Amino acid sequence: MTPVLLALDWGTSSLRGYAMASDGSVISQRAQALGIMYVADGDFPGALRQFCGDWLDDAPAAALIASGMIGSKQGWREAPYCPCPANAASIAASIIAVNSTGGRTLRIVPGVSQVDIASDVPDVMRGEETQIIGAVPDAGTHLVVLPGTHSKWARVNNGVIEHFSSWMTGEVYAALTGHTILGRLIRADAPHDDEAFARGVRYGFDEPAQLLSRIFSARTLGLFERLEPAALASYLSGMLIGAEIGGATGMSGEPAGVLLLGSKPLTDRYRSACSVVGLTASIGSESSAAHGLYRLARAAHLLD
Amino acid sequence: MTPVLLALDWGTSSLRGYAMASDGSVISQRAQALGIMYVADGDFPGALRQFCGDWLDDAPAAALIASGMIGSKQGWREAPYCPCPANAASIAASIIAVNSTGGRTLRIVPGVSQVDIASDVPDVMRGEETQIIGAVPDAGTHLVVLPGTHSKWARVNNGVIEHFSSWMTGEVYAALTGHTILGRLIRADAPHDDEAFARGVRYGFDEPAQLLSRIFSARTLGLFERLEPAALASYLSGMLIGAEIGGATGMSGEPAGVLLLGSKPLTDRYRSACSVVGLTASIGSESSAAHGLYRLARAAHLLD
Repeated sequence: MTPVLLALDWGTSSLRGYAMASDGSVISQRAQALGIMYVADGDFPGALRQFCGDWLDDAPAAALIASGMIGSKQGWREAPYCPCPANAASIAASIIAVNSTGGRTLRIVPGVSQVDIASDVPDVMRGEETQIIGAVPDAGTHLVVLPGTHSKWARVNNGVIEHFSSWMTGEVYAALTGHTILGRLIRADAPHDDEAFARGVRYGFDEPAQLLSRIFSARTLGLFERLEPAALASYLSGMLIGAEIGGATGMSGEPAGVLLLGSKPLTDRYRSACSVVGLTASIGSESSAAHGLYRLARAAHLLD
Repeated sequence: MTPVLLALDWGTSSLRGYAMASDGSVISQRAQALGIMYVADGDFPGALRQFCGDWLDDAPAAALIASGMIGSKQGWREAPYCPCPANAASIAASIIAVNSTGGRTLRIVPGVSQVDIASDVPDVMRGEETQIIGAVPDAGTHLVVLPGTHSKWARVNNGVIEHFSSWMTGEVYAALTGHTILGRLIRADAPHDDEAFARGVRYGFDEPAQLLSRIFSARTLGLFERLEPAALASYLSGMLIGAEIGGATGMSGEPAGVLLLGSKPLTDRYRSACSVVGLTASIGSESSAAHGLYRLARAAHLLD
């Protein structure tokens, strides 16, 4: 079957590609460590050809679309943010086009931005909006969580991304273990410890307002030999994720449940944390980016 | 006047000494970068002689007392923690003695520990207890704040340290600016910006439970050019201090005010933050450690 859409989830570190049929099914897929940070001299057309030149040659009529950091200032070309509230139609209307080699045109999906009125503080995401569009049904209210270096929590109502927030959980964990006194006792390469993780989740979730204090327990519990050094990494990871869940759900009222999107190890870890605090969590498809790109391509009439 | 007490505030990085009269007044004082991390081969007797050999010789009958990390496992000898609730009498009763050169005995003040019953989490301080004993009157309830790498908040009631907590504010600030994406836009050496600091204090204090999310604004406000790069360091510092104050006062109910102990730049910065959020703050004497050592020496009958 000849694909009608070549869809790219093109992030900072990795590039994932999907050759898709007109009904949105994935015919073929591949991934490579060819994120924008690995593209030399800004040669994005060359990187695209290297990644999927065969796809391009075999499907000369297929449309091309990409989401993620490829549309940032550091990417191929900047696709200005689409403001919140945003849905598939408004995001699709903000798609930009760039010329690639062989007379092909690549469409780039914009990120989504918002400015909180009370605090006048902006927030942004780029790539996650496409996963959300791909994973969330058009009806109902959904709280979507995309865990990671900078986790995103998004409230989606009838297909509209109404509000979202970024949480620096993953990066703060790395900074604490790598560059504070907490790292001295922690064995970052220790295997995951379920019990210590759950204890950390509860302690972080219980009072997220005291996080700057509670993280110190990842030292004192080790010093007083109440937690094994091998358990401290799981404990601290749990505490930060617990504080994220506590803070974010406190912001959103009492959600009925959350939808987790992302890689399996991370969504598994977050589902386990949600379970500890009694929050229902389901895990969405790992190919929500492909579905989102397909939906946006449709909304932008690239497949007509 | 010949001193009756040679009192040492002997921390990780610095060593401060006070030659004191029998009424507790300071006859002479000095300081040197001779904290325990700078003492080679564990030669603490040698370091003591180097620091104040003249004082030792001139006052052969004076008692010697020290507080701080000198009593930790990494110090001269470990002085086991005195458990909370603790007052001058119970801390003095836990003082240990080590033999120094010239037949002199050095008394070392223990740190103070507590174990939170609900969470079974321990906390510790070493050195701060002496500053608290030196600064807080024997009557009334006081909330004492010792800002720093690991700030301490202690509730003192009629001279008894009833409860305290550690806050990793200073170290988290250093890790965030030095080792996360926030550091890319921040100019850490920029002069203090009062307005940005106050904005950060309010934003951190307002919802400390959302700290993992709100710190991201130190990036987005820069990216969207709503804060100058030169203002971002003050903004982030304010946010962390604001979250500390919000989290710690939330823990303590609604305190009437706080007593700040520490170096002038830091206590000034915290007083400014307290003022932003409407919390009354007074600044204690910078020589509270000397007063505390004197009080503990009296309570231990070293001056009888």
